[in-house]
Amino acid sequence: MRIRGAPAIGLAAAYGILLAVENELRSAAHDPPDHYFDHDEEIARPGGVEIGAPVVRKKFMQAKKVIANTRPTAINLFWSMERMEEALDRGSPDPLEACARLAREAFIIHDEELETEFAIGRNGSGYLRDGMRVLTHCNAGGLATAGYGTALGVIASAHEEGKRLRVYVDETRPLLQGARLTAWELGRRGIDTTLLCDGAAASLIAARRIDAVIVGADRIAANGDSANKIGTLGLAVLCDAFDTPFYIAAPLSTFDPAVESGSMIPIEERDGSEVSSFAGVRTAPRGVAVYNPAFDVTPARLITAIITERGAVERPDAERLRPLRGPSG
Amino acid sequence: MRIRGAPAIGLAAAYGILLAVENELRSAAHDPPDHYFDHDEEIARPGGVEIGAPVVRKKFMQAKKVIANTRPTAINLFWSMERMEEALDRGSPDPLEACARLAREAFIIHDEELETEFAIGRNGSGYLRDGMRVLTHCNAGGLATAGYGTALGVIASAHEEGKRLRVYVDETRPLLQGARLTAWELGRRGIDTTLLCDGAAASLIAARRIDAVIVGADRIAANGDSANKIGTLGLAVLCDAFDTPFYIAAPLSTFDPAVESGSMIPIEERDGSEVSSFAGVRTAPRGVAVYNPAFDVTPARLITAIITERGAVERPDAERLRPLRGPSG
Repeated sequence: MRIRGAPAIGLAAAYGILLAVENELRSAAHDPPDHYFDHDEEIARPGGVEIGAPVVRKKFMQAKKVIANTRPTAINLFWSMERMEEALDRGSPDPLEACARLAREAFIIHDEELETEFAIGRNGSGYLRDGMRVLTHCNAGGLATAGYGTALGVIASAHEEGKRLRVYVDETRPLLQGARLTAWELGRRGIDTTLLCDGAAASLIAARRIDAVIVGADRIAANGDSANKIGTLGLAVLCDAFDTPFYIAAPLSTFDPAVESGSMIPIEERDGSEVSSFAGVRTAPRGVAVYNPAFDVTPARLITAIITERGAVERPDAERLRPLRGPSG
Repeated sequence: MRIRGAPAIGLAAAYGILLAVENELRSAAHDPPDHYFDHDEEIARPGGVEIGAPVVRKKFMQAKKVIANTRPTAINLFWSMERMEEALDRGSPDPLEACARLAREAFIIHDEELETEFAIGRNGSGYLRDGMRVLTHCNAGGLATAGYGTALGVIASAHEEGKRLRVYVDETRPLLQGARLTAWELGRRGIDTTLLCDGAAASLIAARRIDAVIVGADRIAANGDSANKIGTLGLAVLCDAFDTPFYIAAPLSTFDPAVESGSMIPIEERDGSEVSSFAGVRTAPRGVAVYNPAFDVTPARLITAIITERGAVERPDAERLRPLRGPSG
């Protein structure tokens, strides 16, 4: 949980696999070179020891298994590991060359994701007009992604276009990503920011004091049902009840065409201590049972539009989302 | 905010006025007797000093003004001070006799409120059947009331009838009354209790894993619109969206016939530091604006029934609620 946000988790998975393979080569050689994957330098065989290709592949699969079990909900994790595996198998089985391909692939993924976020920002900013009051939940900003943000990227993009926005930020219990991260990112960008408890959003939405809600996503099913940080579903239901647009901003890597609908998305349940204590202070009686899912699923029918790098899909469903996924989808 | 919960606030107002008047008499006498309002003992004139009736009345009105400004939303505050004022004016203007009447009235209010809560429990327990999963928000238990509880009184009553309930408790940000108080009260009563973040309730309600939501109220308008702890409205909207009964349990003293609808109920806004820091630890960037209303208003159309000591009113509106209020309403 040190790394959070679906796109950032995807990047961490790529870099994590790279580091695991790299460390294996170093320790196998008993003489770790510093830059053996740097292609500007001559590649040295570590200590002259030959390491077989099966060692690299074995370590790759071990790391993949460990990483896959860290955060079951974020699909980007699996997507970026698939790309890494393709890079592994793409060329020479030579361990050092394979490792270099993994490094290159991780950097390419990072770079592409950043471009993706700029595109999401451009595609979504039209939904935010000058003077709007926008509410967001959790953190879908630079700290959760490759650096620009998805939902916060859309807000940043509208802000860069000169639109004056007031952004309300749910503190987002239990881990307070909204208070700790989103409020900080928005403040740093000079955007008018107001923090509130998650439970206070209803009073604003019901009083028509919110013009749009925009959040990120951790996994989107083929029919548009979207998993995102716990508390998102409640916002979507409120938006539906009070005719307020509800947007999801997420890269295509968040889509999971293998999952038909939201009910099939696995939801990570986290330790109860996140709820029953704070900063080392107990906030609940000892031994109380805790229900602490990290995510909930918002059904597609409650989503006004899903904003991706290839454009936005309004009133999303399986039919409307299919063309987005392109030839591979 | 040391005292919270509408019925407890009403009692605190009564006792507060009593203490203010009592202290005035003592200090005016420069020789404070310990038990001058105890009717089992002979009443002694404090130090033989004659204190005029206007002194008592002046102090009463001062205290009333101070107390009225503490918590503007809870109507019970004003209701119990009205009763105290009637007691003041009811008999002899003699200061000690007036003070004794105030003491008696405060005890009577407390006793009546406790009886009221038992009646609310009996009137509401029929809505909770064996095996039900019930969700509550904030604390409407003994700690917020005369001692038995309103929403928690209904739950306790059903539990005492032998029904097995599972109670989900919203932690209730920002002050965590659910985690700190409700979870403790339910645990003490031996009721199966599960704590969750406010934002996690949506996922349970949407999955039909909650059979009923029951909460208290801080003020109920003539048409049934009900102010309660911030976060309540979101639950009511969710219940409406997913066909789950939503109950309010509150004494008639919570009703404010002078207020036609919820939009006229004043909502207390509290200091932002309740949200931006916890247990002395900052959780948000310094200087961030905070929106921190203590209550929200649930429109009557979202309430399945309001449960009072005179019975429950289903699908409450001004017409259906009128008979409840009796001759005085």
